[in-house]
Amino acid sequence: MRILLDGMGGDNAPQEIVKGAVLAAEQIEDEIVIIGREAAIRKELKRNKYKGERITVVDAQEEITMHDSPVKAIREKKDSSLVVGLNMLKEGQGDLFVSAGNTGALIVGARLLLGRIRGIDRPALASIYPDMVNMQPCLLVDAGASAESKAQNLLEYGLMGSIYIEKVWGRKNPRVGLVNLGTEESKGTSVTKDAYQRLSASQLNFVGNVEAREIPRGACDVIVCDGFVGNVVLKLTEGVSLTIFKLVKNALMENLKSKIGGVLVKGQLGKLKNEFDYEEYGGAPVLGVNGPVMKMHGSSTATAVKNAIIRGIPYAREDVVSIIRDEMLALDVIEEELG
Amino acid sequence: MRILLDGMGGDNAPQEIVKGAVLAAEQIEDEIVIIGREAAIRKELKRNKYKGERITVVDAQEEITMHDSPVKAIREKKDSSLVVGLNMLKEGQGDLFVSAGNTGALIVGARLLLGRIRGIDRPALASIYPDMVNMQPCLLVDAGASAESKAQNLLEYGLMGSIYIEKVWGRKNPRVGLVNLGTEESKGTSVTKDAYQRLSASQLNFVGNVEAREIPRGACDVIVCDGFVGNVVLKLTEGVSLTIFKLVKNALMENLKSKIGGVLVKGQLGKLKNEFDYEEYGGAPVLGVNGPVMKMHGSSTATAVKNAIIRGIPYAREDVVSIIRDEMLALDVIEEELG
Repeated sequence: MRILLDGMGGDNAPQEIVKGAVLAAEQIEDEIVIIGREAAIRKELKRNKYKGERITVVDAQEEITMHDSPVKAIREKKDSSLVVGLNMLKEGQGDLFVSAGNTGALIVGARLLLGRIRGIDRPALASIYPDMVNMQPCLLVDAGASAESKAQNLLEYGLMGSIYIEKVWGRKNPRVGLVNLGTEESKGTSVTKDAYQRLSASQLNFVGNVEAREIPRGACDVIVCDGFVGNVVLKLTEGVSLTIFKLVKNALMENLKSKIGGVLVKGQLGKLKNEFDYEEYGGAPVLGVNGPVMKMHGSSTATAVKNAIIRGIPYAREDVVSIIRDEMLALDVIEEELG
Repeated sequence: MRILLDGMGGDNAPQEIVKGAVLAAEQIEDEIVIIGREAAIRKELKRNKYKGERITVVDAQEEITMHDSPVKAIREKKDSSLVVGLNMLKEGQGDLFVSAGNTGALIVGARLLLGRIRGIDRPALASIYPDMVNMQPCLLVDAGASAESKAQNLLEYGLMGSIYIEKVWGRKNPRVGLVNLGTEESKGTSVTKDAYQRLSASQLNFVGNVEAREIPRGACDVIVCDGFVGNVVLKLTEGVSLTIFKLVKNALMENLKSKIGGVLVKGQLGKLKNEFDYEEYGGAPVLGVNGPVMKMHGSSTATAVKNAIIRGIPYAREDVVSIIRDEMLALDVIEEELG
């Protein structure tokens, strides 16, 4: 396996990216190609005392920043690490592309350079969501690739998410749920009502509408919603969790009794907080394009980079892209037969 | 002031409703009219040893349940406590209507029986949202009266919410924020982009787009979003908060050391949990109809009922309905002048 790593993407590039690659190389046998300004990357490899041969560097002099307009950046910055990396993936010079760069540019780039899988109208960004009761990750699709969705897009999100976590995480027969106002079939907007019918008629293990209250309680394995709602679900969960942890910490500092108590419970609370550590889970897959692409958080540290590389490998190895392609062809045939 | 109380609405009617009225009557000088099955309500008044004259009963033999279809229920159950109460409000036989009944039926009933304020396209349900940093309530509009909104609706939500918390809560110059994918003006759907322009051009203290992460941190006083997103924000906040509090509790039971610590911190954590107690805040106003209507949670206990009554009074006393009506007329004039 040959992993293509965007050396210049994210807030901590290239330092943490290169360090993460070095950490990953200690654990896996695969090749890692870091793409970006060669001198800067080689300097970081040296700083991390890397002497092996499995990490190589491909030079790319341009850089797409967080402030660049996605479409413009992809069209104009041909020698950016992101464009070079995606083109290498397209041409078979690598099996997986991993980036912490500009999310919009990565999605637009993947769509324009790799192309959409036939039958997929909208590629999606899938993000890890913590099931806080069973302490396992779920997958939320779409996490913000498109702000609006049609009913057919929501069906595609359910299908792609289901294939991904079955093949990559080995979760059998994943439960697919549709985020909605209420559990009844009749609830929601015209789009969610239509999506409910399409998901029900599909081969997926569709468990119906899911109210937002039940999302953190593990109501389903694949959480289907449009990108606007997905963004709200992810960011609000983060905001509420961090705010409550901070309040708990403050409450424990209130008086002597609670301070002593705080010292005694510190270990357990710390353990709990780690359960929510997004760095552990690695990256978020871009689904629906002709090649496995993983997006890491912009502020990823070396540990997050290492995990995104290692956990991204099965996306390529299990050939999820081909499976989605075949499923879409089958769906197409069924639709044509139904007239 | 004469308060009309739906005696039959909610999971705990009429017991907790009547008890809540008795508790409220101990604290306020106003008259309370409980509407519903007279015999059942009088029995509860007796059970609560109420001997005063400020609580009276108006008989209504029908009941709208949580399972009734809103439009059908309003049209067919003319002798329900909900329909009788709204008609009394319309005819000036009361100043405020408070109900824990079927939310959909209450909103449809308010719209059909009281009518919309001239210029308001969509009445909204406004809900309390806890600012967890400054420990004060904010107002989220719309909490689910409509699943979809147009840009003009979002402007109306901002306007009505702003007037409400300025007049009823006394919060000066409230900050109005629009829930969106990112803070930049260019972010979001065609509807949120258009709403951004309308809110910017208005007289409101519009603070711009607000990301979901910042909502619990008190990014604004009036949180504007469509009813679908509002429902997700409210229910997800509840789900995440309760799940984390439960996890913290479990973590403290893990071992002897954490158990001892848990006993010492119990008081502080309990205090913190109370900050999020929705019962304290009372009800949620229905905004945009020709009369002050308050919605309580379906599972309201006597304390919640008492608080909804007491905290609902300024909605009527400050004549918020007339102020919204005047503002809409002014907005109309401005729009006509602008052509």
